[in-house]
Amino acid sequence: MKPINVGLLGIGTVGGGTFTVLERNADEIARRAGREIRITTVADRNIERAREVAGDSAGQIKFTDDAFAVVRDPDVDIVVELIGGYTVAKDLVLAAIENGKHVVTANKALLAVHGNAIFAAARRREVMVAFEAAVAGGIPIIKALREGLSANRIQWVAGIINGTTNFILSEMRDKGLPFADVLKEAQRLGYAEADPTFDIEGVDAAHKATIMSAIAFGIPMQFDKAHVEGISKLDAVDIAYAEQLGYRIKLLGIARRREQGVELRVHPTLIPARRLLANVEGAMNAVVVQGDAVGATLYYGKGAGAEPTASAVIADLVDITRLHTADPEHRVPHLAFQPDQVRDIPVLPIEETITSYYLRLRVVDKPGVLADITRILADSDISIDAMIQKEPGEGESQTDIIILTHQTVEKNANAAIAKIEALATVQGKVTRLRLETL
Amino acid sequence: MKPINVGLLGIGTVGGGTFTVLERNADEIARRAGREIRITTVADRNIERAREVAGDSAGQIKFTDDAFAVVRDPDVDIVVELIGGYTVAKDLVLAAIENGKHVVTANKALLAVHGNAIFAAARRREVMVAFEAAVAGGIPIIKALREGLSANRIQWVAGIINGTTNFILSEMRDKGLPFADVLKEAQRLGYAEADPTFDIEGVDAAHKATIMSAIAFGIPMQFDKAHVEGISKLDAVDIAYAEQLGYRIKLLGIARRREQGVELRVHPTLIPARRLLANVEGAMNAVVVQGDAVGATLYYGKGAGAEPTASAVIADLVDITRLHTADPEHRVPHLAFQPDQVRDIPVLPIEETITSYYLRLRVVDKPGVLADITRILADSDISIDAMIQKEPGEGESQTDIIILTHQTVEKNANAAIAKIEALATVQGKVTRLRLETL
Repeated sequence: MKPINVGLLGIGTVGGGTFTVLERNADEIARRAGREIRITTVADRNIERAREVAGDSAGQIKFTDDAFAVVRDPDVDIVVELIGGYTVAKDLVLAAIENGKHVVTANKALLAVHGNAIFAAARRREVMVAFEAAVAGGIPIIKALREGLSANRIQWVAGIINGTTNFILSEMRDKGLPFADVLKEAQRLGYAEADPTFDIEGVDAAHKATIMSAIAFGIPMQFDKAHVEGISKLDAVDIAYAEQLGYRIKLLGIARRREQGVELRVHPTLIPARRLLANVEGAMNAVVVQGDAVGATLYYGKGAGAEPTASAVIADLVDITRLHTADPEHRVPHLAFQPDQVRDIPVLPIEETITSYYLRLRVVDKPGVLADITRILADSDISIDAMIQKEPGEGESQTDIIILTHQTVEKNANAAIAKIEALATVQGKVTRLRLETL
Repeated sequence: MKPINVGLLGIGTVGGGTFTVLERNADEIARRAGREIRITTVADRNIERAREVAGDSAGQIKFTDDAFAVVRDPDVDIVVELIGGYTVAKDLVLAAIENGKHVVTANKALLAVHGNAIFAAARRREVMVAFEAAVAGGIPIIKALREGLSANRIQWVAGIINGTTNFILSEMRDKGLPFADVLKEAQRLGYAEADPTFDIEGVDAAHKATIMSAIAFGIPMQFDKAHVEGISKLDAVDIAYAEQLGYRIKLLGIARRREQGVELRVHPTLIPARRLLANVEGAMNAVVVQGDAVGATLYYGKGAGAEPTASAVIADLVDITRLHTADPEHRVPHLAFQPDQVRDIPVLPIEETITSYYLRLRVVDKPGVLADITRILADSDISIDAMIQKEPGEGESQTDIIILTHQTVEKNANAAIAKIEALATVQGKVTRLRLETL
């Protein structure tokens, strides 16, 4: 059978990995796909570097610095977009679709923000847009959610979906170091970028959680409604206290179905230390999916890097290779649900979230302090699950109280915390982290 | 669109679960599949019980005790085989295929033993035979291996793929109890069958490992070549010693690609306690897949039970619903590789396996004992990784030595062990368990 011709936009880390793996495993991949999949055109700003990456194969490939020429090239069957960002990438993907090309992309930002428009365009032109690489790198979580668990009413998805922050949190815990020191180390090791904002402030994880919420629940992408909180303000002392209470702190992306809508949130989260998810260390990723029939399933692997991400890009290429000449009705819907079955379920404001809390208070060591605090919680109908009161240090008059609560609605917790902060015996702000038992 | 009509063969535990989930999630499933999937015919030896399971819906369903009538029924699009075993189930599946029906089956024994014939028949008749439920219950591991990781040259697969034995091993470790006692408890709790042979002797795990080896490496099913060793002879003392050395003992199904062929084996295995796989407890299942591009990925969930298994059966029904009117070339090959690309790579005899070992020896506490043993290992080119020599108990003249070795070929280990057993200072047989660092 005729080979499938791929046009590659961007031959950086992931593009280079895709090139390498497609070439190294050409035989194995063709044995599965039924035909050869080959990169015939590469667009990159740096043509010289692109030629170097292609090495001995450069002779059979067209190189250009004009990505728009690739998406118009009549010889290209599938466009792989690995440029990133929202602007040029968006124009290129839409142009590829208009030209009847199938698209594979690893661009979570693009899909979380402009996915609704992109998938609508793809439906009109009857082309596939595949994005396994956009969430959790090499872990086939999109396929699991969209196809493997299609029998289930999915109740929630919770994942460690940003390797940079998981590396930082693992190091903070292991070495007891503050965030800023570990971030510097992560940058030195290449686990964090020079401008780490998107990772450490939770934006990257929120992009991925948004995509998972859409295919889990059959709702549109609603990135602008996501609650996004990173780890840059996390204090090492809270990691240590959590540990004493049998919990680990992870940056989780969470999408949960509630009666009135969907929770979509990214924040540092206490989870029980005995859970597999709590034991995902370093830059690894893992996602837990709770379905009503299957219960909890977990998917674990490398969430980034050249070849792990290429693994997902190429799996999409194989899928499209099989189905590109098929009637669109034979294809899996882009977002798991049939396009006319996507439902406009709203993302709930964070104040409506239901979760448990870890509270750390700095208090004056006086009789009645604890009684005042527990009274406020009881009056707010918030049950206490565990508590530590530290003895004040030698010569100190203040001490820490740590409280773990049962589930409550966030606005209720906020009101109780405001009352606690107003107590004369409580110093400064209450540190509040969310806790999920999963 | 016209609903898809399913004929269900066997409405026991999994059949009942399939019925329940299809009904409960009918809306959610149709939103994904694009049409309704409904059970129109049920064959069961006990029609009365079958009617009871169907409850209020019994009126719209045909019941029969003649399963062969279902596979011939012109109104049935897909046959779901949940009878189990090799004999009637084989005839039924082949008859369904001959009648042009697509088949979904959870029957690992049937596929491991007769899969080559069944998939050949399915190709001739251009029908799909789907079997996600045959391995690791609700975990979509077949889809991950066959589609999600299609970019990779898969190097090995190792899994906890039998819940009964994992439950027993978890209990033996937690409570320090011997195998026989825990088996009785497992039977009482319904985790082990009245005749537990297939589970505890590793046969069930070997069926599943055989299926995974075929789709991971593109080879035929070779169940008769698998090395199968269960947990019934496992001594609780070895679980305790392994623990002291930082290892857990799990019954693993392992398929590994070597230069000369494929290792296919099921046996109790020491694995490092810090691995996620070592922390899979109770009746849960998990599979690790090592691919050359993606590295290690892990898949975890419930490996048995009515609804988890139904989750996999229904995912297959949704897949077939999408593709049943498509040209066969648009479908994923049954065994991941194109039928003409399956390669006759042999399964290696267990003597050719390369692995590490845990050795426990009972020795007379005399000078020179350890020197003799370590000399034999050194002469056989087997390096020692760790060792414990226990002090003899009060008034005893014998003691245990535990040795962990580096990797070696099994026949080499066998020869060294025979020499060690021939030493006058070594009492009885050497206990030998395989160890994988994964």
